Amino acid sequence: MYSQLILPDLLEMVRNQDAKGLAEFCAVLHPAHVAEILEEVNSKRVWEVLAHCDLARQIEIFEFLDLHKQVELFSALDREPLSRFIEEMSPDDRVDILSRLDSESVESVLPLVAQAERANIRKLLSYPEDSAGAIMTTEYASLPENVMMSVAYEQLRLQAPTRETIYYIYVVDDARCLRGIISLQEMILAKPNALLHDVMHTNIISVRVDDDQEFVAQELARYDFIAIPVIDDDNRLVGIVTHDDVIDILQEEATEDAYRAGAIEPLEDGYLDTPLLTLVWKRGVWLLVLSLFALVTAQVLDFFQNSTKPSNWMILFLPLVLASGGNAGSQSATLVIRSLALGDLDRQKYLQLASRELLVGSMLGAMVAMVGFSAAMVWFQLSMVQSLILLITLLLVMTLGAVNGSMLPLLFKRLGMDPALMSNPLIAALSDIIGVAIYFTIATLLFG
Amino acid sequence: MYSQLILPDLLEMVRNQDAKGLAEFCAVLHPAHVAEILEEVNSKRVWEVLAHCDLARQIEIFEFLDLHKQVELFSALDREPLSRFIEEMSPDDRVDILSRLDSESVESVLPLVAQAERANIRKLLSYPEDSAGAIMTTEYASLPENVMMSVAYEQLRLQAPTRETIYYIYVVDDARCLRGIISLQEMILAKPNALLHDVMHTNIISVRVDDDQEFVAQELARYDFIAIPVIDDDNRLVGIVTHDDVIDILQEEATEDAYRAGAIEPLEDGYLDTPLLTLVWKRGVWLLVLSLFALVTAQVLDFFQNSTKPSNWMILFLPLVLASGGNAGSQSATLVIRSLALGDLDRQKYLQLASRELLVGSMLGAMVAMVGFSAAMVWFQLSMVQSLILLITLLLVMTLGAVNGSMLPLLFKRLGMDPALMSNPLIAALSDIIGVAIYFTIATLLFG
Repeated sequence: MYSQLILPDLLEMVRNQDAKGLAEFCAVLHPAHVAEILEEVNSKRVWEVLAHCDLARQIEIFEFLDLHKQVELFSALDREPLSRFIEEMSPDDRVDILSRLDSESVESVLPLVAQAERANIRKLLSYPEDSAGAIMTTEYASLPENVMMSVAYEQLRLQAPTRETIYYIYVVDDARCLRGIISLQEMILAKPNALLHDVMHTNIISVRVDDDQEFVAQELARYDFIAIPVIDDDNRLVGIVTHDDVIDILQEEATEDAYRAGAIEPLEDGYLDTPLLTLVWKRGVWLLVLSLFALVTAQVLDFFQNSTKPSNWMILFLPLVLASGGNAGSQSATLVIRSLALGDLDRQKYLQLASRELLVGSMLGAMVAMVGFSAAMVWFQLSMVQSLILLITLLLVMTLGAVNGSMLPLLFKRLGMDPALMSNPLIAALSDIIGVAIYFTIATLLFG
Repeated sequence: MYSQLILPDLLEMVRNQDAKGLAEFCAVLHPAHVAEILEEVNSKRVWEVLAHCDLARQIEIFEFLDLHKQVELFSALDREPLSRFIEEMSPDDRVDILSRLDSESVESVLPLVAQAERANIRKLLSYPEDSAGAIMTTEYASLPENVMMSVAYEQLRLQAPTRETIYYIYVVDDARCLRGIISLQEMILAKPNALLHDVMHTNIISVRVDDDQEFVAQELARYDFIAIPVIDDDNRLVGIVTHDDVIDILQEEATEDAYRAGAIEPLEDGYLDTPLLTLVWKRGVWLLVLSLFALVTAQVLDFFQNSTKPSNWMILFLPLVLASGGNAGSQSATLVIRSLALGDLDRQKYLQLASRELLVGSMLGAMVAMVGFSAAMVWFQLSMVQSLILLITLLLVMTLGAVNGSMLPLLFKRLGMDPALMSNPLIAALSDIIGVAIYFTIATLLFG
């Protein structure tokens, strides 16, 4: 809404080359607001606007843009100004963009970047995608342990201008091994002549450089940290992951899981930013898998139709039988997948979970079975035997659905796959096959 | 895993009344770890353990426990020590618990709480659940604007011990209206003789006390803040919401949306902490609604069976037809609901969305229709006309499914309801009814 109001004025200023107006636009608004408005402007024009503020402000605004837009802007800039820009960006943000560009473009601009920054970029680019190393920043505040608080404070002041956060100070030894942590709030309250070593916390919580970003996010969230330190295999401090990046990760992972639950391959960009054909592919691949399952269901139905000859009334309740098993299964899978994402389920609890789902599934099955039975008797005027077939089928299908729905995501996890791949539609598709088989078997048994 | 190792030792220490051991247990580990272990211990014993550390540490540990456990512990404590405990807790955390207790228990303990704290509690309890007011803390750092930085820094130091965070300092006038904001990092870098008024930011981002917590979380996330200020109708600063609470809210909202997508009413506690019957109810209510839809589908099927007399082959593909419409719809609903949750969709984009879904849905429909058509011809050896009926049905059902799946959540939002109520199973159930109608209508038209 913000952007809709100011955008026309901004475009007018660009047309008129109104330097004073553009400088004010960049300076007065919150950088996040400036970024929001610039999202709607084409890349060449964005650079024309940003030319009216200094590099520091340019970067501040730039870092609030969508990754998608950032990549676009990088591609629209010449190599020389681009390399200056890259040098000044925060280490984690620039690596995010560079890892999205093709390696040729990266290699063409990196030689122009200052030596130290270049080494930093190559190092961070070398960590696997979605690992702590790939998302951390190297701009943290650190101090040696044998200094007095007053000295520590002065040293911190010198580091402050170039650090992403100075609110947690990491105490390291000569080998850069992490020895302790102190918050700035605690530092301010400590006696000026106390030794940092005596005041710092030594029960350090950290993550390793190759830990998965989801684990890193869970850990920071669990301890309510502003930042969490990242150490390498030799226990050396190599970076920190900050709260704002963790929020982005949690949102990203929640989005990924929501997409998976709806049988969509995760998108790299926002929904409206994703090209149409990409969207068709990310959805189509799952729809094809699901339609194959439905064809297997057709095959199973065919088998039973040839042997049992189903009466019309059985067909009427086929949608209820299929939907009920799938729905109970989707519910169970949802509960398990979300608990895993929140880190609430460990392996000791798997058995407790299975018995719980068996119990809940059968209670839910009994409930829906009673509804189905009553509807069959009263609404559709079926016989007692026919209604009983429906009752038993619904009870069995839903109990099995609940148990399968809870166990399949755990099986996927065990196999090293994402449990969220067990989407609601996939659970429903599997449940359809079982549902048909149970329905017709019960009918054959009761009818003889 | 942590708790499983230490728990037996801890219980042993409690049995032996090992005061030294228990004091060490409370003091050495990170309070989050202590809390994790105490989760597994019954409430009476937890208080026996916590008796071995001072009140400040007790609270530090306590605030890392699950809300569920905190409520239990509150109920297990006598009124007198409980009131001391409440006085020292952070304002937002204690209100969280008190709002979960029955009002009788709250009224029995509040008179014992010190006057100032009691007023603070009553004030915060008066804000609607899930509003900014209900989640904010009142322990923020604030300063007047006409002080020099050196003085400001000394005043901040005095506030530091009792403030949840001092990393953002809020500059207020005599009426407590919010005039500016400065971060501690900027304060440290400012010249000691500069005036706070000249250094502070005046483009203030804040939320209102009755804003929804999801909006508050989105705003903090958008600006990468550590905390966001909350103002009342007279623009007075009344509190702040901090990054750790926002992470909890985002997790909570993502969990709620995941549950809704799987047709489960949101749970108040974690999955394994929820009593069995509550779980049955939260799932059963949706299963009942869904089975009613399935009975309507049965009714529609009944109508067509009486008029059309479906052949066996049509029954075979009924699961494919029903699943395909539901799956395309689930995908669309998922994309729209998630975009709304991330704040990416505003009203101007609804039309763009509908046309996009129409296009994507028909492309996906064409794809699956081709698969169905080929399978019908080759695998199931149906005639050309029969296969064509399937092809046209799949194309129509999926296109309609995609459009409905994207529009229904928007309709719900328009009606002031949670768009996430349009769960995957509900979309599938609605799509079943339409699917049956289309399938039989096409068959009647083509067969004559």
